[in-house]
This record gives sequence, structure tokens and C-alpha cells, in this order.
Amino acid sequence: MSAKTDSANAVMIDATHGALLTDLYQLTMLQAYWRHGMEQTAVFEFFVRKLPAQRGFLVAAGLEQTLQYLEGLHFTSGDLAWLANTGKFESSFLDYLGELRFRGSVHAMAEGTPFFADEPIVRVTAPLPQAQLVESRVINLLHFQSLIASKAARCVLMAPDKPLVEFGLRRAHGAEAGLLAARASYLAGFVGTATVAAGAMFDIPTYGTMAHSFIQAHDDETSAFRDFAVTNPGSVVLLIDTYDTEAAAAKVAALAPSLREEGIMVKGVRIDSGDLGQHARRVRSILDAAGLQDVTIFASGNIDEYLLNQHAEQQIPIDSYGIGTHLDTSADASYLDCAYKLQEYAGTARRKRSEGKATWPGRKQVYRRENAVGIMINDVVALEDDVREGSPLLREVMRDGRRLEPPMPLSEIRDYTLEQLGTLPPSQRRLRPDAPYPVTIAESVKRLATKAVSTMPR
Amino acid sequence: MSAKTDSANAVMIDATHGALLTDLYQLTMLQAYWRHGMEQTAVFEFFVRKLPAQRGFLVAAGLEQTLQYLEGLHFTSGDLAWLANTGKFESSFLDYLGELRFRGSVHAMAEGTPFFADEPIVRVTAPLPQAQLVESRVINLLHFQSLIASKAARCVLMAPDKPLVEFGLRRAHGAEAGLLAARASYLAGFVGTATVAAGAMFDIPTYGTMAHSFIQAHDDETSAFRDFAVTNPGSVVLLIDTYDTEAAAAKVAALAPSLREEGIMVKGVRIDSGDLGQHARRVRSILDAAGLQDVTIFASGNIDEYLLNQHAEQQIPIDSYGIGTHLDTSADASYLDCAYKLQEYAGTARRKRSEGKATWPGRKQVYRRENAVGIMINDVVALEDDVREGSPLLREVMRDGRRLEPPMPLSEIRDYTLEQLGTLPPSQRRLRPDAPYPVTIAESVKRLATKAVSTMPR
Repeated sequence: MSAKTDSANAVMIDATHGALLTDLYQLTMLQAYWRHGMEQTAVFEFFVRKLPAQRGFLVAAGLEQTLQYLEGLHFTSGDLAWLANTGKFESSFLDYLGELRFRGSVHAMAEGTPFFADEPIVRVTAPLPQAQLVESRVINLLHFQSLIASKAARCVLMAPDKPLVEFGLRRAHGAEAGLLAARASYLAGFVGTATVAAGAMFDIPTYGTMAHSFIQAHDDETSAFRDFAVTNPGSVVLLIDTYDTEAAAAKVAALAPSLREEGIMVKGVRIDSGDLGQHARRVRSILDAAGLQDVTIFASGNIDEYLLNQHAEQQIPIDSYGIGTHLDTSADASYLDCAYKLQEYAGTARRKRSEGKATWPGRKQVYRRENAVGIMINDVVALEDDVREGSPLLREVMRDGRRLEPPMPLSEIRDYTLEQLGTLPPSQRRLRPDAPYPVTIAESVKRLATKAVSTMPR
Repeated sequence: MSAKTDSANAVMIDATHGALLTDLYQLTMLQAYWRHGMEQTAVFEFFVRKLPAQRGFLVAAGLEQTLQYLEGLHFTSGDLAWLANTGKFESSFLDYLGELRFRGSVHAMAEGTPFFADEPIVRVTAPLPQAQLVESRVINLLHFQSLIASKAARCVLMAPDKPLVEFGLRRAHGAEAGLLAARASYLAGFVGTATVAAGAMFDIPTYGTMAHSFIQAHDDETSAFRDFAVTNPGSVVLLIDTYDTEAAAAKVAALAPSLREEGIMVKGVRIDSGDLGQHARRVRSILDAAGLQDVTIFASGNIDEYLLNQHAEQQIPIDSYGIGTHLDTSADASYLDCAYKLQEYAGTARRKRSEGKATWPGRKQVYRRENAVGIMINDVVALEDDVREGSPLLREVMRDGRRLEPPMPLSEIRDYTLEQLGTLPPSQRRLRPDAPYPVTIAESVKRLATKAVSTMPR
């Protein structure tokens, strides 16, 4: 890994390639584990401590990238040379790092499963140094996609019959955020993304219209519409808010018949500013009066689930939406209070007791009960070996560092997610839930916590 | 670019490598520009429309990565093959894309310069297709680093004498966000980062202590402290809040003399939970009573500029801070209302008039006046050719697609930023500014806007 490269792209590549995408303390702790032979089996769980006030449920996502990361984890010779240069590490420890691979097992909830506070969604069981080293990137991957999938699912629930497209690359926090936001929102029920690379990488349908600059660069708006339509006859969605939205809608109405004679159909118009609902009503009238009932209205610009809900209540005639900034940054709750915590080491349950951050020890499983028509009733967080009613949500997906099954196609994960969203109780489906979903900590877990406290290190 | 690869790292690499890291509409617009020979010179500017309510100033950042991106921009044969497969593009257009490079010029504010609403911080002048294509990634890069540098600068202003370390990889929005947040916060005056890859890539000092899991994995806390200290004698900062903060501080006090006899000095302790201020006072007393006045207190966990300000007012004895989630996600304002807009094409000023999103046309310059002691007085946004008082902030940094100067070392940018923060007026330096900084739009720009409206396309 070199500090200077010839393109920004290359810089980012070097960074995400190596095992150095971690916090320094993982490496200094590993050096101590290595020195003192602490390589027994550790169990870490990833969970959320508390849902953001604006969320009634979360959606698990990011497992696929986590497994890919664990499979590929290794230090390159360049990584080791850089570490040697810091002077913080012994050379025989660096030799040890050079051999290190992830050989543990992973239990996880399927991507797309709704989850709640205190429920582990991923459990890593591995020799302590391996399970420790991966903490930073495992959290980084699970946190972000779960954050975005949760926000996206709320949008989908507020506009169940309207196609939603992810539009946020420009305001996403870097390239990877843009790409993974496209994945997480498609997973949660969006129909596609504007980001070409996300389409190429994850096989997500891509959508796009035109920018204001396209209109501005032309000497008149109608010429801009015509130029675009004849060049891209399969995807004619015309942006009409550059100067005067209703005037532009009238231009579209005037242009459409001549395009139709050339065999080009105007599919839709896009509005990106002003009071979207008011403009949509007026534009709908203009288009309908011209016999263009089939031309759809696509809206973008500051959309989130709150506005979608308002539009649904007001029956605004917008057919589909592009959602960017608020989705890709999860603007009303830009992070989850999540953690990846040691729950067992060398066969003994471990419990952190820090104020406000105490953990439930042991290897845990989440059991979910549903009613006769498949709606979720309650969850119990129990120990793995407990026998409980309900469906266990965590399954073993990796053993000895190898996946037990090939990756599931993203479109199938999406189908599963939509089905799962259908099992949420009415309160959780609302924009502002009336009450939290009932999650119980099993007595077995509480007993283990008490025991872990009483046998706790002095 | 293949959809399936064998590691998460590789997936990210493919994504950030290509010119496909863009919105689909850039490519459909380019096809129309190409078809209709619209390749005259376009001028786009990147600016922020309105500061978030919680910000009195912003700090320009991300220029270096933007220039690297522009220098390296090209479509690979894999990119072109994928585009061909979509069926949306003509093959001779794809041949044209294969040859496309960025050959334009860039004017920009130096990284680290404070800026305000309506002020362009980057201006791109290039043949229309080139200037258009780069929109998505240019915004993505400038937006995120400016967002984080601005948040980091606020932290630095609230704790001018306390070393601050960036700690946020795990909750950053993906890998690139973690890496670029480390860069942006170091640039704004932080002393370093916990992220190893950011240290390697950008030559930023790295810092780290230990995690709770390290303590938990040991059978007693003192053994954990000792194991760590003897293995990492140069960086002994001990985490004391896993079970009982004050009890652990007493253990550190008891252990320090024997470590000292072995030549190992305890540098500091870290507190990560509870009321940090209260714990810090008690821990300070315990350490002082044991003669450990030199052992510093490092705090982390939910830190932001508001808490730093409170600690400063209460004279809390914390020596340095690790700041993660709130910094890396800019949690109180997770995005900037920014844009990259066409201001001139083919020698004519262009103006978007969309409601709430109208632009100031033409090639602009920002002139800044300072008083006799170097404090900023006001800015004027004028046309490039205007002669105005004050220092022009935009300089040409790239011409014909080539940089005019080699990249400035990050540590020098950091020095410049700290100097610039020193020129902010008192109101802007506050947590909640009393009044916005005065920025005037020059009459010449207003006249051009009127003219652009009257000659506007019908």
C-alpha cells in the first residue's frame, strides 16, 4: 500500500483491499493476545442497543459483504511492510499476521429480516484474535446497510404501490456508501438505482432521466426535449422544472404527438422542485387534457417517507419517486447505536457492565412467534441451546471460514424482504409506532448475566 | 466489471475504479450531446445553497481527491462491454466514450478555506460532455469531505488545546467514508485517526488503546492491563470503564509503580461510558493521589462539539478525546444542500430558475476582505473579470486536464486550515452563530442573472 497513487480510484482501491481497514487497537490487542497465547474460542455478537426514536423496526442487511470480507481477509506483504515501519510491532508478530486467515463460523439472520434492540443479527465464533480483528469492518458493513435498508423499508411501506428509485450517489458519504445504499434500498423493495456502477456490480435495474444542465445547455426547452427523445427513444422521461413547470408540461403536450408519429413515446415527466404535490396536480391536468393519460409523473428532490405518507394521504397524482439524500444518509437518524461485543471466551460467558452499555452474555438465539395469519407476535432472546416456541432466526452460514451456501441472488433477497415486511404488526408499519414491538430477554440469559457478574474478574 | 467477485474488497475495487461511478442520466445525456454535436465549452460550479441551521461556516475539502478522479477518468473495456449489454447505447457512442478523457480546467478554493452559501468552491470549465459526466462523483467527493471537515473544525474550535482523534470507522457510511473522514478531520485540526488504512494512505498519525473485549477476555482486569502494557510498552493507554471505572482507576494506580520499575510508563487511561465529566473528576483525583499526575485521561463515546463546549465551560479534567459516530456521520447535519450547476455554455450565461433552487449565472470569483489584524470582514461573489477589493479565493489548479502544481502534503493543508480558522469572526467561531457571515452578490452577477432571464430559452 503506497501513500501516493495516480488516481483517486486507485487510492480507494488500496484502502479497501487490505486487512488494514481496521482500528489500530485491534492490532495492538492482537499483539498482546499473540504474546500471551490467548487464542481460545471467542464469541462476539453484533446487535443494536436501542432503536432510533424515529424507527419502529430495523431490517438486517450487509451480511453478504461481511461474509465476502471474512473469506478474503489477509494481510498483504505491503500491509506488513507498512506496519513494520510504524515500529509498534514485533517482527515475529507480523509473521503471525501474515499467516492469519479467518477460520471461524458465523450465525446470522437472513438479510431482509426485521429485527429489534438487543437481538443479535450476526454471531462470530472464532479464535479470539480472528474474531477481534474483524470488529471494525464487520460493524462498518452491517451498520450501514442495515441503516439504509431500514430507512428504505419505511419508504416502501409508505408508498407500497409506487415504484421508488435510489437517487443518492452524489450526497452519499463516499463511493462505497453510494453503492451499498443502492444495494440496501433495492433489497428493501426499491425498484432500482440511478448509480450505474451499482447496477453493474449488484445486477440492480438502473434508471435515469436528465439534468437541468441538459435543458439549460439548449437554446430552447422543446429542442432539449426533442434531442433527448430521439437519442434515447426507449427512456423518454423529460425534466420539466428548469424554468416554469406548467409551461414545460404544455411543451411536452405539444411535442408528444409529433414524437409519436416518429414512433417515440414520451414515458414520463420529472418534477424536482417547488411544492411537488401542487405541481403534480396541475401537470396531471395539462397532460390529461392533451390525451396523455399514459405519461407518468416522476418526482424527486427532498423526498423521504414522511413526504411519501403525506402524498398518499392527499392522493397526489405522482406515479413514482427518486429518493436520494434523505435515504442515502438516513438523514433523520444517521447512525444506529450498535455494537459487536464479546459474549463468551474460552467457554465462559463474559459480560460488559459499562453504564448504559451493559451486554447480555452467552451465545444467543432469537425466537420469533407469528399468529395464524403470519403476523409477528413477539420475540424472545434466549440462549442458543434453549428450546423455545417460535422460529429461530439465526442460522449458521459460515463454518471454518467457508460459506455453507452460495450467495443468494439479490432479487431473491428482495422478495424475501418484501414478504417479511408483510409480517410486521400494524403498529410497526406506521410512520410513528404507537408502541415498541415486544422483545423479551429469556430467564436463561438473565441467569447467565447474574452468574457472569458474580464470577466476574476482580 | 463483473457482478460477482470473491471478496468484499474486490467488489469495492471494481466499483470505484471505473467511470461507471456516475448516474445513468449522465450517460444518456452524453449520448444526446454526442449525437447533436454539443461539445462547446461549459462552465459548472459547485456551491452550497444554504448552510445547515447548525453551522456558521463550512470548510472546503475534497479537492485533492477530485483532481485525482479527473486525472484518472476513463472507461475500461469492461465498462464499455457492460454498457453495450444494457442496450441503451449506440456502439459508435460507446467508441466515443472509450476515447473520452477529462481535458478541462479547474478553479478552486484551497482545501481548508472557510466558505459560505452561494460561494463556488470549485469551478469546472470543459467541453460539455466532460464537465457533465463528472458531476456525480465530483459532488460525492466535495460534499462529503467538506461536510466532515466543517464538523471537525467546530470540534477543534470548542477544544483548541485538547488533542482530538478521529475514531469513527465502524459507524462511518462504508469504507471510503471512514477513510475520507479521517483525512477531512485531520485536515481540520485533529491530531490523528484510529483507522490504520487511513494512516497508511494519507500519512496521518494513528492512535489506539484497547477494547472492552480485551479486558473481558482476561480473568482479571489488572492482568489485562499488565499484558497490554508489557506487549505495547510505547502506548500504554488503559481502558477503565468495563466494570467499574473508579475501581479500575485504583487498579491502574496500584499497577503503575511496578510497571515503572520495568521501565514501562502508563501514558493514560480511557473512559468510554457514563457521565464522562463526573468520572473524569473522580479518576483524576485517584490518579493524582497516587502521584500519577502525568497519566492523562482520554475520553470517547458520544462526543461532539456540544459536549466539548460543555466540558470546556465546566473545566472537566479530560486531556484528549476520541470522536467517532457524531463526526463521521456529521450527525446533527448529515448532508449539505449543495449543487454542481451549469453557469455558462458556448459563451452564454445560463440560469436555472427552479423554485428555491435558482442559480447565479456566469464564471464567478469570491473576494474576501480581512481587517487589519487578519479577521474576515465580508465576502463578495463577483464575476471572474470584475476588479474588486479583497483576496480572490478561487485559483486555477488544473488546465487541459493536468494539475498546475503537485499535491500539497496533507500536514501543510492542515497548517493552512488552522491558520484560516483563526481568521473567522467571533460570531462564526461560536457553537451557535449570532448572525450569518456577510456575503454579498455583486451587482455584475445580478445584472447577468436578469439578462439570462430575459434572453432565456422559450
